[in-house]
Amino acid sequence: MDIKVIEFNDIVDAKNVKRPMGHLTPIEELKDVPFEIKRIYYLTRVPENTIRGFHSHKELQQVLLCLNGSVQISVSTPYEKEFITLDDPAKGLYIGPMVWREMYNFSPGSVLMVLASEFYDEEDYIRDYRKYCELAQDYYKSLSKI
Amino acid sequence: MDIKVIEFNDIVDAKNVKRPMGHLTPIEELKDVPFEIKRIYYLTRVPENTIRGFHSHKELQQVLLCLNGSVQISVSTPYEKEFITLDDPAKGLYIGPMVWREMYNFSPGSVLMVLASEFYDEEDYIRDYRKYCELAQDYYKSLSKI
Repeated sequence: MDIKVIEFNDIVDAKNVKRPMGHLTPIEELKDVPFEIKRIYYLTRVPENTIRGFHSHKELQQVLLCLNGSVQISVSTPYEKEFITLDDPAKGLYIGPMVWREMYNFSPGSVLMVLASEFYDEEDYIRDYRKYCELAQDYYKSLSKI
Repeated sequence: MDIKVIEFNDIVDAKNVKRPMGHLTPIEELKDVPFEIKRIYYLTRVPENTIRGFHSHKELQQVLLCLNGSVQISVSTPYEKEFITLDDPAKGLYIGPMVWREMYNFSPGSVLMVLASEFYDEEDYIRDYRKYCELAQDYYKSLSKI
C-alpha cells in the first residue's frame, strides 16, 4: 500500500527571540512532498462521530496533515489495512493512488488539511467501495507482475 | 497597497448526506489564488500576547488564512495602514510585494496558514523596518511614475 508517514520540519520559536513564539512548519513542493502542490483543501468544524472520506483516487497523490487537535485515518486496500492518528502539525500522511481512506474521530477544533498533486477531477474519484475492490484487485495484480 | 481579501468556496456538509458533515474549503493554484503554490507554512501554538511577522517581502506573494480560531493582521506601507481580522477559514488575505506585516492576537488553538508563490529565499526578506521604509519609498515612487 502506497502510504508513508512524513515528519516535516518543526521550527520552534524564532531566531534571536528569547521568549516562546510558537511553531512554524514549512512545506515546499517537490522537496518536502514528492509532487507539485496544485490544490489544497481543508476540513474544519466536522461534528463529533462523523466519518468522512469513503473514496479512493485512481492517480491523485495527497498528503494529509492535522494542524490543530487530532483526527484518525484508516487506509486500506483489498489486502491490508492501517490506522494512523494525526495529532502533530509536523506529521503528514502521504497517500498514493488506489488506497481507500476514511477519516474519523475529529476532535473539537480539529483542522485536517490535504495537499494534492492535481486539480479537482471527479473522474479520478472511486466512491463505490465494491467498484473500488474490483479495480484495486486488478491494479495490485498488474503491479505485482512488473 | 497591494492587498486583497479573498472569499474562498465554503462547501458546507456533503452531497447526498443529510446530517451535518463540517466545512471543506478548496483552493487551487492560479485559479483561486493568483500564483503557483510552491510553498506553504503554518503557525501553530503561538502563545498569547505574541506578535509575529515584522517583515516585508521584495517580490513574494502570499495568501494568509486562519483555519481555526482567529488572528489579527496589520499591513502597512510608509503611506497607509490597515487592520484585518482573520476568523473564518474561507476568508484569505492576499499580500503582494513591499507590504510590512505583523500578526498578533493569536487565539488559543489558532492556526495561521500561509500560501506562498516562491520557495523560501532569505534574500527576499526585509526585516529591518527603517530599511523597509527607505526601500518602500523608492518602490512606491517608481510605481507612481508608471
